[in-house]
Amino acid sequence: MLRIRTIEAPAYVGQRVHLGGWMHSWRDMGQFGFLVLRDGAGTFQAVLDNQEEMAKLRGLQYESVLDVEGLIAAEPRAAVGAEMHDCHIEVLSPVLEPLPFEVNKKELKPGLDTFLDYAPLGLRHLQKRALFRISAELMAGYREYLMQQGFVEIQTPKIVGAATEGGANVFVLDYFGRPAYLAQSPQFYKQMMVGVFERVFEVGPVFRAEKHNTARHTNEYVSLDLEMGFINDHTDVMNMLTGVLRHMFGRVTDKCAREVALLKLRIPSIGDTIPAIRMPAAQQIIFERYKEDCRGEPDLSPQHEVWLSQYAEKELGSEFLFVTHYPTGKRPFYAMADDEEPALTKSFDLLFRGCEVVTGGQRIHRYDQLVQNADKWGIKPEQIDGYLQAFKYGMPPHGGFGMGLERLLMQLTGHTNLREVTLFPRDLDRLAP
Amino acid sequence: MLRIRTIEAPAYVGQRVHLGGWMHSWRDMGQFGFLVLRDGAGTFQAVLDNQEEMAKLRGLQYESVLDVEGLIAAEPRAAVGAEMHDCHIEVLSPVLEPLPFEVNKKELKPGLDTFLDYAPLGLRHLQKRALFRISAELMAGYREYLMQQGFVEIQTPKIVGAATEGGANVFVLDYFGRPAYLAQSPQFYKQMMVGVFERVFEVGPVFRAEKHNTARHTNEYVSLDLEMGFINDHTDVMNMLTGVLRHMFGRVTDKCAREVALLKLRIPSIGDTIPAIRMPAAQQIIFERYKEDCRGEPDLSPQHEVWLSQYAEKELGSEFLFVTHYPTGKRPFYAMADDEEPALTKSFDLLFRGCEVVTGGQRIHRYDQLVQNADKWGIKPEQIDGYLQAFKYGMPPHGGFGMGLERLLMQLTGHTNLREVTLFPRDLDRLAP
Repeated sequence: MLRIRTIEAPAYVGQRVHLGGWMHSWRDMGQFGFLVLRDGAGTFQAVLDNQEEMAKLRGLQYESVLDVEGLIAAEPRAAVGAEMHDCHIEVLSPVLEPLPFEVNKKELKPGLDTFLDYAPLGLRHLQKRALFRISAELMAGYREYLMQQGFVEIQTPKIVGAATEGGANVFVLDYFGRPAYLAQSPQFYKQMMVGVFERVFEVGPVFRAEKHNTARHTNEYVSLDLEMGFINDHTDVMNMLTGVLRHMFGRVTDKCAREVALLKLRIPSIGDTIPAIRMPAAQQIIFERYKEDCRGEPDLSPQHEVWLSQYAEKELGSEFLFVTHYPTGKRPFYAMADDEEPALTKSFDLLFRGCEVVTGGQRIHRYDQLVQNADKWGIKPEQIDGYLQAFKYGMPPHGGFGMGLERLLMQLTGHTNLREVTLFPRDLDRLAP
Repeated sequence: MLRIRTIEAPAYVGQRVHLGGWMHSWRDMGQFGFLVLRDGAGTFQAVLDNQEEMAKLRGLQYESVLDVEGLIAAEPRAAVGAEMHDCHIEVLSPVLEPLPFEVNKKELKPGLDTFLDYAPLGLRHLQKRALFRISAELMAGYREYLMQQGFVEIQTPKIVGAATEGGANVFVLDYFGRPAYLAQSPQFYKQMMVGVFERVFEVGPVFRAEKHNTARHTNEYVSLDLEMGFINDHTDVMNMLTGVLRHMFGRVTDKCAREVALLKLRIPSIGDTIPAIRMPAAQQIIFERYKEDCRGEPDLSPQHEVWLSQYAEKELGSEFLFVTHYPTGKRPFYAMADDEEPALTKSFDLLFRGCEVVTGGQRIHRYDQLVQNADKWGIKPEQIDGYLQAFKYGMPPHGGFGMGLERLLMQLTGHTNLREVTLFPRDLDRLAP
């Protein structure tokens, strides 16, 4: 006999089927009882009135794994219009001890640390797992759009011979007796691959040995990267980012309707363009509106990002805001300087609901200029010779960005700590499970 | 004016456009000359007859990056039926020194080591880059099929607190003063996530600190993993693998027609099922046909795999062969033993054209049995407590597999060394570029 998934059950009215899943809840009314079974897709109610079958559930802990065979019957009062009757239960994996917390209530009670200690259990919570289904569709939407735009997906090494973006914040590894490093980003590799495919993207882990525990940093996260050749300037990259974000959110709306409803999310709509302001203008706005003088500072603080997002939402009607032209000193050696204002770079950050979620820009593509700039930053050519090789043998004007998947998910779902939207977060204190 | 890609050019006959790309080849005939421009998508020929424009190319090294503006004209003698006339050239990035080897010839001359030293250049070779476009479509096909089958994509941490699959062959990392490890596979995490989504998959890097340099091993590779719940036994996993492989090859056929033709590949067709033989029967065949007695040995050698593939192709008409029921001692502690023959496991390897490309099987899902088995393998429960937690709180019968992307690509494209089909390989001697 067929095993079907809970979400398919309403289509099987009048048929006997198997459902398999976890004992989500059980209300024992004596003569009869209501079992809610949860599987990977959803939940479904079974009504039991046979004492022998009910005995199998009595004393059993929630989360026990069951196979339930029965008749799908129409039931207008049920949310999905059907339930299961005449059930026969097989306990596949009994849970023998009490759960550390309830996972079948709307509110997940434990604090973040307890939740993370018990992540394999806690992630089963319907609201929790909804986050990671949305995360999967964000990735799928990212790839789908970029492949339509002629991008080729690459997978670049995470063990590298030299620290990619400067020596700080890099994890060191014992590589057969010599030091190696964990890649802080696929930056160098994706640029090299512009020389091969023009347009490349990667979805993969990046590693930052940052010694501070903040709500918006973890030490390993998923980066959505791309790099594209033959651009005019950084605004081509910003336009590609605008397009791909619109597509990603569209995909979440299409494919995650139940999750969006469950989490009561408001998916932002993105018009033809996202408003952009230059860094000095952004600092001037902060000065005038919020009375803090950060003019001339090299970077924005988290508070500045919140203010600028408030400004963009109120004055520009946008939940997104590009801040462009970060100062040269704050960007890496490969960042392209602005022709007219060489102290600024053709770069951007994207703010979304008060937090930076993307960093990108145009890169230097001429070999001599890149070597010169590396030298200014104290980087010797022999430290980056593999990277420089791509430029020695011809690179077009190009640019790209890196987007933090968990950051994006955090802002989309209204969370305030990256650890709440990371499957198994890694930070100063946490390496498990 | 529009910049178009080379593959789009034949559709623009009669129009002036920009092409951007690399100076792939240049034949100077004095009064006129033929420039072949290569971009990320393909190549296109431009015919120059203006001395001023031709002067820009004279003395310029191949791989210089050009913007070429001109008129697309019909030309029946050209392979694509069109070429560019009346060209104006802008040199975007000149290459100033000779290339270490030619990348515009059908044969790529340098040996593997030289090629890898100059990978950013060598990967531009048309045949070389075709491999990685196919690789991208294999990944895309993998995800596409699994999402259709209700799988959810996950991204699990690569920095782990304990070595997942035994202590050998694991890279050790300095994690803020204490040791951490690079994940040898997402095995434990994908199993935990069966408790959440039933069906999950991951495409990501795995790390093996194997101290031997063989043609079929590298120290970092891309693993296509999945894990699925509510199976009857390992054959459900084998069927899923059969389906996903068929889809992946179908996608390569659809999306990579030019690459398949360029590389003269024969894409295997996969029927409803792939033939399967049990390990003892496989060893008996080797004994009878090839006169080597490996009966009772715990594993197959590379030579055995070659012989079995020969046998399968000749006798069973299949380029694929499942070998099932590997001995308990050769599989990890979580492998499910066969009910009828407890010395063997419900496991499988998939051989493809003489090489193992997938390993999988059913896993133990009952908590007590798993703890007991871990103990037999000398693993203490506290070493794997995060993992065990998932089982303590209810896990269904489940299984899965891990497939090496580069291995699959190697066998598909007829290469003999994994380093030829890995973008930037990592081995004992190589950490760069």
